[in-house]
Amino acid sequence: MAKDFPTREENYAQWYNDLVIKADLAENSAVRGCMVIKPYGYAIWEKIQSTLDRMFKETGHVNAYFPLFIPKSFFSREADHVEGFAKECAVVTHYRLKNAPDGKGVVVDETAKLEEEYIIRPTSETIIWDTYRNWIQSYRDLPLLVNQWANVVRWEMRTRLFLRTTEFLWQEGHTAHATKEEAIEETEKILGIYARFAEEWMAMPVLKGLKSPNERFAGAVETYCIEALMQDGKALQAGTSHFLGQNFAKAFDVQFLSKENKLEYVWATSWGVSTRLMGALIMAHSDDNGLVLPPKLAPIEVVIVPIYKKIEQLGEISIVANKIKQALEKKGISVKYDDRDTFKPGWKFAEYEFKGVPVRLAIGPRDLENQTVEVARRDTLEKEILQMADIENKVEHLLEQIQKKLYHRALSFRENNTFSVDTWDEFKDIIENKGGFVLAHWDGTPETEEKIKEETKATIRTIPLDSKPEIGKCIYTGKTSNQRVVFARAY
Amino acid sequence: MAKDFPTREENYAQWYNDLVIKADLAENSAVRGCMVIKPYGYAIWEKIQSTLDRMFKETGHVNAYFPLFIPKSFFSREADHVEGFAKECAVVTHYRLKNAPDGKGVVVDETAKLEEEYIIRPTSETIIWDTYRNWIQSYRDLPLLVNQWANVVRWEMRTRLFLRTTEFLWQEGHTAHATKEEAIEETEKILGIYARFAEEWMAMPVLKGLKSPNERFAGAVETYCIEALMQDGKALQAGTSHFLGQNFAKAFDVQFLSKENKLEYVWATSWGVSTRLMGALIMAHSDDNGLVLPPKLAPIEVVIVPIYKKIEQLGEISIVANKIKQALEKKGISVKYDDRDTFKPGWKFAEYEFKGVPVRLAIGPRDLENQTVEVARRDTLEKEILQMADIENKVEHLLEQIQKKLYHRALSFRENNTFSVDTWDEFKDIIENKGGFVLAHWDGTPETEEKIKEETKATIRTIPLDSKPEIGKCIYTGKTSNQRVVFARAY
Repeated sequence: MAKDFPTREENYAQWYNDLVIKADLAENSAVRGCMVIKPYGYAIWEKIQSTLDRMFKETGHVNAYFPLFIPKSFFSREADHVEGFAKECAVVTHYRLKNAPDGKGVVVDETAKLEEEYIIRPTSETIIWDTYRNWIQSYRDLPLLVNQWANVVRWEMRTRLFLRTTEFLWQEGHTAHATKEEAIEETEKILGIYARFAEEWMAMPVLKGLKSPNERFAGAVETYCIEALMQDGKALQAGTSHFLGQNFAKAFDVQFLSKENKLEYVWATSWGVSTRLMGALIMAHSDDNGLVLPPKLAPIEVVIVPIYKKIEQLGEISIVANKIKQALEKKGISVKYDDRDTFKPGWKFAEYEFKGVPVRLAIGPRDLENQTVEVARRDTLEKEILQMADIENKVEHLLEQIQKKLYHRALSFRENNTFSVDTWDEFKDIIENKGGFVLAHWDGTPETEEKIKEETKATIRTIPLDSKPEIGKCIYTGKTSNQRVVFARAY
Repeated sequence: MAKDFPTREENYAQWYNDLVIKADLAENSAVRGCMVIKPYGYAIWEKIQSTLDRMFKETGHVNAYFPLFIPKSFFSREADHVEGFAKECAVVTHYRLKNAPDGKGVVVDETAKLEEEYIIRPTSETIIWDTYRNWIQSYRDLPLLVNQWANVVRWEMRTRLFLRTTEFLWQEGHTAHATKEEAIEETEKILGIYARFAEEWMAMPVLKGLKSPNERFAGAVETYCIEALMQDGKALQAGTSHFLGQNFAKAFDVQFLSKENKLEYVWATSWGVSTRLMGALIMAHSDDNGLVLPPKLAPIEVVIVPIYKKIEQLGEISIVANKIKQALEKKGISVKYDDRDTFKPGWKFAEYEFKGVPVRLAIGPRDLENQTVEVARRDTLEKEILQMADIENKVEHLLEQIQKKLYHRALSFRENNTFSVDTWDEFKDIIENKGGFVLAHWDGTPETEEKIKEETKATIRTIPLDSKPEIGKCIYTGKTSNQRVVFARAY
């Protein structure tokens, strides 16, 4: 653990990268663009995963698993999809290696060439809808509410740990419905789950809305998203839920016999969040002292550090510390008691501060005498001395407070960095010099969005679901507009 | 659901394959050798996964994630490993597709050729030990006790659902230690976990032992395994734990500074179980009526079916059924109340019997009058009428009984099909006509094992850890032997 990394002010990108690496969350691997998720980072991902998995199951979804490989021809079936996905991807062309003729290592066996190449899935709509054709015959087989936890690969040119990597982990839901209405309802239900997860577990406020056609998922009729604002004023798309209409059902010929005994194409949705959420989580709360984690997703919520001069004192402290540990664990709180003799308390304090452990308890001989504990919270770096009695309830309450505090801090940051703008000059100025979410009128055309992007690097992050209609003039063309949309530069 | 499939007696292989497909566990996909794991099958896998994950964590292991891709050259570093793994595998050679010149679909963009090909991981020792080089400097960094849940790919020519598929899911543990003794202890500890899981959760007795050199993992010094006996008399390797010595540390130059301040190579283990366990689970207990699942791994432990003639009767039954459901769920038992009006009770009975639900409760109007429930168990197909009072405790007890019964039934099957054999003729006869585990003396040479395999298709499944030394003569060569080993034909 070391603090030799820049502040957010000095170099935000470097601050983020160093934090991820030095806090043992992830690192670059020997494979270009692919990361290794280290145990501490993976423990956070496991909490994300188990929470979302529970939320999906509570709403009637089940898990399944589909192949990693997708035959190349599958991508060509859906016209938009192939444009969006079948280009920058990993292609498997052979299935055997052989010893090199010169005796050094192995080479591809050219006789073992696949007749049709396989693509490593960048997303699984095609292989899943090819499968659904056999699963769906009648309205009785619907809805199908299936989710998959998997790795996917998109060949990215510029990668950043968690935010954009060639291989990443995610969940992808793929549901099939008898009616358009039911499919749209599902798409919106999932958006609600994503937003609730982001706000209640990640303590990260998000805007819910639609994507503009330019930013829509390749093959979707409508893409819903949640968008968060990072501390550098850039937006981050944290999850998407797509209403796919009958596009994939038509591409893969998935029809069902309706209650009225008519053959109809099935309606589809797909939705996903990925290890990108890790990047959002880190950037939403952390500071120049290191990671700050919301208690609900912290692998260690409370660390207890014994303070002693002589090793004889450790025994008594440990008895008290373990009692507190057990009492907290009984409440479902994860606790680490770090009684390692190989590191000094000061080193441990710095370590857990850097790794974002929400609450630190320190207990020394004087605390035993006075029946007290020193309690430090990571979010504000405040310390106080509390009476030992009932400490587990006090700590539980403190964790709840921290969770709320982080959310409200992030929310007021977003509020302070959301601007309603009516002139093109002001728009350019804010995008360039302040960042944040910019609410502005847009004439609704892809051409205008494209030009704004070219001139400012800002894109429409979302067309908010809850915004009120408001007549105005497009910031760029001056044409009539019915609603403000949210612009920002984005990750 | 349909029972139009052969009995075990008629055609065991077909019985297995039909069972997997018709019970909605898995099916073949559009990708050669790759399966789709369907929701019902995946729910069993999730139970396997969560149980093992808990056992690993309880013994100090943590999860992490390493890249799917492995640079080709990595395989050549460890001489045995390359022979064993880097041959039949999926090779990524390109990273882009482009529109076909004829406008039909997409083709590989030959300008986007990788400088060095990537192999889809068949197992991750190489990429992990390449990573460990940076994680390990001193004895303070040891042990590293890391596990990964992942998909792997081995290009199999003949595949069978769950038992041998091109892509499969598994966990692979990779640990690093300061001493040989500690690494061996870890290897054996994991073998113990695997055996306990197989016996207590899968209700499947296993032999624990070592592999002969011929069957050893490519790159291991010693391979430990658990072996189970299937109902057709063939053995199935259900899990392996490898002591890797310093082979991978040397291949990837992973050294550490010992307490004595000396630079030494790190000691390694690796260990894994896969979705193959699903195949073992299915074959260990199921019968000609369909699946039989041990309660501890059954997605639905208890199903409740209402019996009624008029829809008016359903309301009252449902009140009672839901009360029982809640009482059982409070005990942590998973219950499904199937009150669908679209299927008859007889159809439901057949369905849940076929899908191996351990306990079925049926409640009709007469039961309400008499305060009774009809309780049917899947393992013996026995039914009895029980008093409603205290039904949750009776069912809980019954589930425990079923779990034990399945284990003991499988154990006596194994005992009845384990033969101690002293002549070559008897050996050949039993292998050919009876199957089962054959305990026989072996001279300890790979050549003899190879010849026995050629003549009988039987291999040494394991050299049991708990067998007593016994002087005898090799079944094949007549040379001196110190111990009986276990031969069988195997999956």
